[in-house]
Amino acid sequence: MKPLIVLNFKTYAESTGENALRLAMAAKQVASDSGVTIIVVPQIVDIFYISQHIEIPVYAQHIDGIEFGGHTGHVLAEALAQAGARGTLINHSERRLKLAEVDAANEAAKRAHLTTIICTNNIATTRAAASLNPDFVAIEPPELIGSGIPVSKANPEVVTGAVEAAKGIKVLCGAGISKGEDVKAAIELGTDGVLLASGVTKAPDPKEALQNLVAFV
Amino acid sequence: MKPLIVLNFKTYAESTGENALRLAMAAKQVASDSGVTIIVVPQIVDIFYISQHIEIPVYAQHIDGIEFGGHTGHVLAEALAQAGARGTLINHSERRLKLAEVDAANEAAKRAHLTTIICTNNIATTRAAASLNPDFVAIEPPELIGSGIPVSKANPEVVTGAVEAAKGIKVLCGAGISKGEDVKAAIELGTDGVLLASGVTKAPDPKEALQNLVAFV
Amino acid sequence: MKPLIVLNFKTYAESTGENALRLAMAAKQVASDSGVTIIVVPQIVDIFYISQHIEIPVYAQHIDGIEFGGHTGHVLAEALAQAGARGTLINHSERRLKLAEVDAANEAAKRAHLTTIICTNNIATTRAAASLNPDFVAIEPPELIGSGIPVSKANPEVVTGAVEAAKGIKVLCGAGISKGEDVKAAIELGTDGVLLASGVTKAPDPKEALQNLVAFV
Amino acid sequence: MKPLIVLNFKTYAESTGENALRLAMAAKQVASDSGVTIIVVPQIVDIFYISQHIEIPVYAQHIDGIEFGGHTGHVLAEALAQAGARGTLINHSERRLKLAEVDAANEAAKRAHLTTIICTNNIATTRAAASLNPDFVAIEPPELIGSGIPVSKANPEVVTGAVEAAKGIKVLCGAGISKGEDVKAAIELGTDGVLLASGVTKAPDPKEALQNLVAFV
Repeated sequence: MKPLIVLNFKTYAESTGENALRLAMAAKQVASDSGVTIIVVPQIVDIFYISQHIEIPVYAQHIDGIEFGGHTGHVLAEALAQAGARGTLINHSERRLKLAEVDAANEAAKRAHLTTIICTNNIATTRAAASLNPDFVAIEPPELIGSGIPVSKANPEVVTGAVEAAKGIKVLCGAGISKGEDVKAAIELGTDGVLLASGVTKAPDPKEALQNLVAFV
Repeated sequence: MKPLIVLNFKTYAESTGENALRLAMAAKQVASDSGVTIIVVPQIVDIFYISQHIEIPVYAQHIDGIEFGGHTGHVLAEALAQAGARGTLINHSERRLKLAEVDAANEAAKRAHLTTIICTNNIATTRAAASLNPDFVAIEPPELIGSGIPVSKANPEVVTGAVEAAKGIKVLCGAGISKGEDVKAAIELGTDGVLLASGVTKAPDPKEALQNLVAFV
Repeated sequence: MKPLIVLNFKTYAESTGENALRLAMAAKQVASDSGVTIIVVPQIVDIFYISQHIEIPVYAQHIDGIEFGGHTGHVLAEALAQAGARGTLINHSERRLKLAEVDAANEAAKRAHLTTIICTNNIATTRAAASLNPDFVAIEPPELIGSGIPVSKANPEVVTGAVEAAKGIKVLCGAGISKGEDVKAAIELGTDGVLLASGVTKAPDPKEALQNLVAFV
Repeated sequence: MKPLIVLNFKTYAESTGENALRLAMAAKQVASDSGVTIIVVPQIVDIFYISQHIEIPVYAQHIDGIEFGGHTGHVLAEALAQAGARGTLINHSERRLKLAEVDAANEAAKRAHLTTIICTNNIATTRAAASLNPDFVAIEPPELIGSGIPVSKANPEVVTGAVEAAKGIKVLCGAGISKGEDVKAAIELGTDGVLLASGVTKAPDPKEALQNLVAFV
C-alpha cells in the first residue's frame, strides 16, 4: 500500500504566500513522480492561491463547526470548499477545540464534502475522536512534536494502540517524522500515512526531503 | 468630513466566495461614485480572491498575535499582507481575544503594515483598547448587535463616551447601523465612521443599501 | 432500581454560601427519607463549608486536567478531594473543555479517587466521552436546557441513543427535568438517573421539589 | 512606606489543603511580627478553610465576570465574598482572560467589595489594565516568571514604565522575586509591593523565606 503524506505548512516563513506556492509545486512534482498522494495544508489565506494554480489536494489547517451566519473571524466549511480546499485538519495540537466543537467541525466539513482528519494526543483521545466518524485520525504525542525523534521509533506502542483504538477509522501518525524510514515504520505499524511539517518545510531543500520521504515505496 | 464605512462580510451565504466577490464589486462602485471610502472585510479564505480582482481596501476579520513559526490554524500578519489585506479587525465581538492577545495582535498587524481596528463593547474597554495605540477602535454595544436599532440613536452617550475615552484614537461605531441617517448621526457624535454587516450584506439589494448609506454625504 | 439525583447548584443566589448549605441540608433529608442517593454540586468555593457540615456526597462543578504545579486559578483534583469533594462534573455545557482537556480532567479526577461525570450534548459526543472511561456520562441536549421541557419527553430517542452509544458506561440525562415523572421516564429509557438544576434550586420550596422528584420510587 | 506582599499559592502540593493552612499561618505570624501586610492567595477551594481559621487577608486566584445565574464551574464574586475572600487576582498569566472579561471581572469584584489586582505582561497591557480602574495592576514579564531572576534587576525599565503607564493606579511587580533586596528594589522603582509564589511556597522553610523578604523594612 502506498502511504498518504500530509504536509502541514503551519505558519513558517518558508511556507507562507509565494513560498507556499513554491512548496506546493515541489510537492506536486514529487507526488507525480512517485505516485504517492501528498496533501498540502497551507494557511487558510493561501488556500485559494494554491488551489487555483496547482493540481494537488489542498486541505485547511482548521475549520469551525459553524453554519452560514454571524461568525466573524471563523472558518466556514462552504467557504473553504469554494476556495478549493478538499479537506481539513481538525483539533491540531496548536489549535485544540472543545469536544463539542470537534464534533461540530467534523459535521460541518462533511456537509461541504471535505475530508476530515481529527488530530489527537494519545490513545484515549484517538478512541474518542474515531468514535465521531471522521475520515482519518492523526495521532501526535505532544512530547515528540518538533523533537526530530519519530513517534514510530520512540513509542511504537502508542501508534499500534491508536490503530486498534480507531476501530477501522484510518490512522495517520505524526511528530518527529522526517525520513523515508519513518514513513515505512508508520505503515508497518498499521497506519495509512503520516502528518508532518518542519521535517520538510524547514529542510534546506524541501523537494529533496519529500523525495527521500517517498523513496522507500 | 467623509465617513469611513467598514463592511464586515461575516460568514453569511450572501457574502461568501463568489457572492463575496460580487458584494465587493458593488462596494467598489458605490465608493467610486460617492467618494466615500468603503473597506470590505471578507472571510480570510476569500481575501486573496477579492484583492486580486478588485481595487478596494480589503481587511481581515481576525488576526493572531503570532510571528512566523509553528502556529497551525492561526492567522499570520505577513500572510494576510502577502494575500493583499491592508488591515484587520481585532477582537470582534464574535471572536474575542485575551487582553495580552489583543496587544500582540495589534503589534503583529503593525509589523506587517496592516491598519488595525480593535473592537470593544463599552466605554471602559474602549479606553483600554485605545491605550494599546491601534489605528481605530470600534465600539459595538453587544445588546444592540443585529437589533436594527442604531447605537447612535439607542445610546448616543456610549458613542460620545467612547470618543472621549479613546483620547485621540479614531473611533468607529457599530451595532444596528443600516441607514444613511445612522452614519450621519455617528459622525455628528464624533466618530470617523461605522462598522456594519447584516444591514448591507443581507439587504435585498446590497448595492442600493450601500448607496443609501452614503447618500447623506 | 433507585435513580441517582445529581443536583447542580450552578451560581444561583438561591444556592450560594449560606443558601447552598441550606439546600444541601434539604437534599440530605430527602435522601435519608427516600433512600434515593442525592449528590449536591455546589460552587467550588462552597465545597468545604458543605462537606464539613453535612453528610452528603458533594461533587465539584468543574475540574482541570492538571497536576500539582504552577496553575493559578485552576481546579486541582487533590485540592478538591482534601476539601471533601467525592466527584466532579467535567465539560458541563456552561464550562466546555477541549477534547484533550476532557481526557486529562477525567484522569486527574481518577488519580484523586473522584467519581467523574462527563457532560455531553448529543449522541456522538456521548459515544466519544464514554470511550474515555468516566464513571458516568450525562447527556443534556442544549436546546432543552432551562426549557422546562424534559428531555425524556421531548426527545426520548436521544436518551436511548446515548445509552446505547455509552456501551456500558452509566448514563444520566438532563435538561428540563423538574418532576418525579421525568425521573421515572429517564430510568425507563435506560439511564441511571438525572442531572438537574433550576427545577429544584429555583423552586419556591426546593425541599418539596426534591420530595416530588423522588416520590415515584 | 511598607510594601505589600501578595503570596500566590498556585496549585503546589506545598500550598494545598492542610499545607495551605500551615503556610497561611506562617504568613500571618511574619505579618504580625513585621507590620508588613501579607495577602495570601490560595486555591479557591481552600479559601473558606483558611479565612475561617486565620486572621489574614485572603484573595482568590481568579474570578469570572458573571452575576448570579446559570454559570456552572465559574467563580462568582458574591460567593467568594461570603467565603471570606477580600480580593482577587484577575488575568493572571496562568489564567488569562479576554479583554471584555477582564473588565467584567473587575466590575463583578467591585460589586462584592473585593479588592482587585489585574495582572499584565508588559507596559502596554499595564496601561490598558490600569484604564479599567482596578485597585492594583501587577506586572509580570512572562520571560522572567519562575526564572529566579527578579524583574526589578533584569528589567527595571519595564517596572518604572509600568508605574508611569498606570497613571496613579497602584502597581505591584512580580516574576523572579524571592529576596528582601528584590522587594526593596521594587519599592524604589515606584511600586507598592510584590506578587510572588514559588520563591516562598517552595522554599525549604517558607516562614524563613517570608522573614527574609520583609527583613529590609
